[in-house]
Amino acid sequence: MRKLLVIGIGTGNPEHMTVQAVSAVNRADVVLIPRKGEAKDDLAEVRRQICARFVTNPETRIVEFDLPVRDQSGDYRKGVHDWHQAIATTYRDLLQAETNEEGAAAFLVWGDPSLYDSTLRIIERLKGLAPFDLSIEVIPGITSIQQLCASHRIPLNKIGDPVVVTTGRQLRDGFPAGVDTAVVMLDGECSFQHLEASAFTIFWGAYLGTKDEILVEGPLSAVGSEIVAVREAARAKHGWIMDTYLLLRRSNS
Amino acid sequence: MRKLLVIGIGTGNPEHMTVQAVSAVNRADVVLIPRKGEAKDDLAEVRRQICARFVTNPETRIVEFDLPVRDQSGDYRKGVHDWHQAIATTYRDLLQAETNEEGAAAFLVWGDPSLYDSTLRIIERLKGLAPFDLSIEVIPGITSIQQLCASHRIPLNKIGDPVVVTTGRQLRDGFPAGVDTAVVMLDGECSFQHLEASAFTIFWGAYLGTKDEILVEGPLSAVGSEIVAVREAARAKHGWIMDTYLLLRRSNS
Repeated sequence: MRKLLVIGIGTGNPEHMTVQAVSAVNRADVVLIPRKGEAKDDLAEVRRQICARFVTNPETRIVEFDLPVRDQSGDYRKGVHDWHQAIATTYRDLLQAETNEEGAAAFLVWGDPSLYDSTLRIIERLKGLAPFDLSIEVIPGITSIQQLCASHRIPLNKIGDPVVVTTGRQLRDGFPAGVDTAVVMLDGECSFQHLEASAFTIFWGAYLGTKDEILVEGPLSAVGSEIVAVREAARAKHGWIMDTYLLLRRSNS
Repeated sequence: MRKLLVIGIGTGNPEHMTVQAVSAVNRADVVLIPRKGEAKDDLAEVRRQICARFVTNPETRIVEFDLPVRDQSGDYRKGVHDWHQAIATTYRDLLQAETNEEGAAAFLVWGDPSLYDSTLRIIERLKGLAPFDLSIEVIPGITSIQQLCASHRIPLNKIGDPVVVTTGRQLRDGFPAGVDTAVVMLDGECSFQHLEASAFTIFWGAYLGTKDEILVEGPLSAVGSEIVAVREAARAKHGWIMDTYLLLRRSNS
């Protein structure tokens, strides 16, 4: 049976790698590194750096491959479905070419494999496509939520209180019900601009854990437009951006 | 200025330590290990194992101390307040005794310092008590949420959907509004028993990431009472338990 090691690598700081993750890459016969096009080449570069620093097993090979591109025209859900199917097919072909029946392949997943990442879902599709058996092992990794809190030196939750983890798309329908704290991910549009600014404090971060990290915090009414400007300038400079933020309802609102 | 290193160590698997965390313990002059009484001695033991395995700097000393005990009679919030104040006082005395003005002390925090942990709040109190200046550095760690998902090989979220992280106490007031997924922590009472069992699937885990890990998953109506029994037996055997679970609303409910 082939083994797939799905390894969380953290948010861009190679030192986010856990001892378990370092051990896992060295158990792999092959580490598969996706190329996602020039704009996100920094992301492939972090994976290369991780391999260069932590792969010490001379039997472990590093193989780069071109990730299929998502068709962004048409229906969103169908676009994602077709894209995942294309990626699963690519994985099948790579596993057949690069591993034998007892082999192990590693996927390096940004952040943690459980949080807003599709690798586990694509592997479910792969199981339907592949003419071979697979076993799956998941290694957790540091998420941008944790690095956001660490960099700002704040707790995620107030004592005993719940927290919502959500997306920019969801936030545009309003702040989540029943909580005072929300972490927002996958937000390309600074969706906090749809909220009543006087009611929230924001802790924002981009390129978290890397040398390019940017942090802004304060009352949303005071720093919201600054974040929009800082984000746009950083995205123009780097060609891409990954950012996340925590919103805290102000207690006097 | 004294430095405090607040280091997430993961959920009991020493290999959850990140490269950054290993580096941080070796930058400390002293690693402070709390003793919490016999029942939780396993937790101090994990910290000792981590130090034995990863502290390679001969200048780094390991110092154990008795953590003040919380007064569980009377008002909950006042009890926590007084307890945190007593811990902050203990920290002040330890830092004065064990570090000089340019020294660094490390705290090893179970899971991640941002998630349902009081160390950062107690350090805020310490700042008010200490006759010396402090700088704080936070190192993120793997949480039980991430190990729960990794062990069950499941995503935390459905595509693009929000997730609530909450407590047993909150869950007893009902499943959170506006979401289909909730992760429940700090639940000593199997509070899922208050829910309509036919409406949920549960993924439960205890001693996550350790050799004693126990996993149960299935429709809540089918496995709820099994979890209650397994949990009670494990707690009796070990003298303590740490568990967490994910509840997923069933799509036909």
